[in-house]
Amino acid sequence: MKAILICTGTELLLGQIVNTNAAYIGKALAEAGIDLYEIVTVGDNQERIANAIRRGSENHDLVIINGGLGPTEDDVSGEALAEVLGKNLVVDPVAQARQLDFMHKRNFAIQEFKDKTVQVIEGAQVLLNGNGSAPGSLCTVADKLYALLPGPPNEMQLMFQQELLPRLRKSFALNSVIKSRVLKVTGIGEGEAESRLGDLIHTLNPTLAPTVKSGEIHFRITAKNSSNNEALKLIDEMEAKFRKLLGEFVFGIDEDNLEDAVAKLLWQKGLTIAAAESCTGGNLAFHLSNVPGSSAYLKLSAITYADEWKTALLGVKKETLLTKGAVSKEVAKQMALGIARKAKSDLGVSITGIAGPEGGSEDKPIGLVYIGIYYQGKVVVTKQLFQGDRAIIRERSTKAALRLLWETLK
Amino acid sequence: MKAILICTGTELLLGQIVNTNAAYIGKALAEAGIDLYEIVTVGDNQERIANAIRRGSENHDLVIINGGLGPTEDDVSGEALAEVLGKNLVVDPVAQARQLDFMHKRNFAIQEFKDKTVQVIEGAQVLLNGNGSAPGSLCTVADKLYALLPGPPNEMQLMFQQELLPRLRKSFALNSVIKSRVLKVTGIGEGEAESRLGDLIHTLNPTLAPTVKSGEIHFRITAKNSSNNEALKLIDEMEAKFRKLLGEFVFGIDEDNLEDAVAKLLWQKGLTIAAAESCTGGNLAFHLSNVPGSSAYLKLSAITYADEWKTALLGVKKETLLTKGAVSKEVAKQMALGIARKAKSDLGVSITGIAGPEGGSEDKPIGLVYIGIYYQGKVVVTKQLFQGDRAIIRERSTKAALRLLWETLK
Repeated sequence: MKAILICTGTELLLGQIVNTNAAYIGKALAEAGIDLYEIVTVGDNQERIANAIRRGSENHDLVIINGGLGPTEDDVSGEALAEVLGKNLVVDPVAQARQLDFMHKRNFAIQEFKDKTVQVIEGAQVLLNGNGSAPGSLCTVADKLYALLPGPPNEMQLMFQQELLPRLRKSFALNSVIKSRVLKVTGIGEGEAESRLGDLIHTLNPTLAPTVKSGEIHFRITAKNSSNNEALKLIDEMEAKFRKLLGEFVFGIDEDNLEDAVAKLLWQKGLTIAAAESCTGGNLAFHLSNVPGSSAYLKLSAITYADEWKTALLGVKKETLLTKGAVSKEVAKQMALGIARKAKSDLGVSITGIAGPEGGSEDKPIGLVYIGIYYQGKVVVTKQLFQGDRAIIRERSTKAALRLLWETLK
Repeated sequence: MKAILICTGTELLLGQIVNTNAAYIGKALAEAGIDLYEIVTVGDNQERIANAIRRGSENHDLVIINGGLGPTEDDVSGEALAEVLGKNLVVDPVAQARQLDFMHKRNFAIQEFKDKTVQVIEGAQVLLNGNGSAPGSLCTVADKLYALLPGPPNEMQLMFQQELLPRLRKSFALNSVIKSRVLKVTGIGEGEAESRLGDLIHTLNPTLAPTVKSGEIHFRITAKNSSNNEALKLIDEMEAKFRKLLGEFVFGIDEDNLEDAVAKLLWQKGLTIAAAESCTGGNLAFHLSNVPGSSAYLKLSAITYADEWKTALLGVKKETLLTKGAVSKEVAKQMALGIARKAKSDLGVSITGIAGPEGGSEDKPIGLVYIGIYYQGKVVVTKQLFQGDRAIIRERSTKAALRLLWETLK
């Protein structure tokens, strides 16, 4: 069961809109057990759409065409598919009646009605449009299926789920489901993680696929089976094997993120926290307070850009600032300790670094960041060196602080 | 000048991520006057990628391949292009040295280094990766150009703009240019803005197109001409007309954002600022410190989630907290005044509100936010009521504070 998706729309080629329909259809097909092999995007041009359909039908069992069913001259997807299949476009009387009724109720002038908006491919199974006027078509020609779906996301999604999918399940006798779960790890490199996982990464059902994302690796387990429960069991088994090898690095599942993991640990242990930030300018506190209910553990946070406030508020020694500089292991240490003392919190976390674009030197380059964590009477300071621009350095510093907090608490 | 874009990544076919790279590249090509005729997405499979390249090169002058340059076995785009062109992959010594230097500075084990991540097509022009390790390749074979770009958006975008585009301009002697400029306004509704603009919104060259984005309207002026200077002149003329009608609401151009506009005004007037945040948890300070050089004006910022710290640090009266509650006009006023006094800054800004999902009541619903601005001896407090979830309320509160700061200072 190989499928190809053909998206039409010059606005997609011009980058005026992002193709979220393709992601939606890709995900929905995967969940139904249909393998999407290719996505092709072409402009609103009948010849090019027709060529894409012809070529797509050579190696695929299912050709889905999305977009181009509207009233304007640009909308030529129906015409292109009719051309390829050697059929005519005909008015669907049901869609016509619905549309005329709709216009009547809204007091639209009937002369504005265009037959073009309610056409389907001759002989096709008509797909009802519950959110708009243009009906879809599903044609079977020489054992291949051709589906024509409207472009607006709300129309496409409803038609896909309620009209197209049940017919595809029947046509292809689909009885398999695909389930997936994402295990998120941090504190280990991609190469090291993959070598620890060994052959696990090459299994076929379930599969295990990594995505790297700013200091985190997200491993997606995907299982296919005829039974929902069996698919979930396959995932559970893979998760158990995975956790035996990399369990210590797993901080979350699916939608969990690092701040949720930190919040959960603070909550479980009944601990409070305070933050003192310099180069991240509040980003760490912002992440820590993303979690609902965070006021229970986030006591106080200070952004002490100016050295005078590092001293006045956090008690960083003037001498240390003078001899070691604001971006130093010693200042990070005093900041973490200082904010914890000030806020009377169990943990104190500090970030001081050089985010650029100015302020770097040979000794202290842009991207140099010290992160301090005070917990249980001692401060641990970690030195980091990040690549990237100001925004990336600020984001990575924040993520690193969250990771270090998680590692401290787990 | 016909181009085709080939995006690689099984995660794109499975709908696990939305293809924003395609939109970015489509837009950037259009602006350069290069016509993108087709986008093809295939999985991480060397044969299928190679087939897409072969087919794409038949009818197009430029084939761009995006993604699949990483270290894992899945990353086979370089291999596929090398196969099609009948060339080898070779290590780029510059990228290799940069990467080894980077790993050395970070104390990474050198055995983790993989040649695969620094390979280019033999004989290609090497495209430097300013945001990562994998270099890109640009090959000319039989009058056709093949470009290989990395998948991570920040790496791809920088390489596209700085490395690929200048070479494409030269290779294709591009002479029809499309130029655009975005004028950003705030403090006026879309309907009112469009009615003030009248016929200006319907001109054909340059065009003027609005996009609404959380309290801001971005008007994009787009002009096409054979001469760069003429295109810019068309844009200048449109901007002048636009400013006559809506000038007072324009806070920035192109990449400018509200924090830049605020920063510029603070800078020009030699003013300093301090912030006290509650429900936004540091997001305002984060935005204010996004601007390079912000340490010159951002003195201090405090996130006082806990009432005790509103009192201890900002001098908010216990009685006011008791009688009016933390989310009240009076507390916002005392917070703004308190942080300005504490930091000895010219401006003080405060945000206190209910971001949810808990903590709302009949009197004080979720989304109620007070923003206070102290400036020139007085505090102005604005009451806002935002709709949306926790993340949206926090973001809109921050944007509103920035807008109010801009209106106060302009």
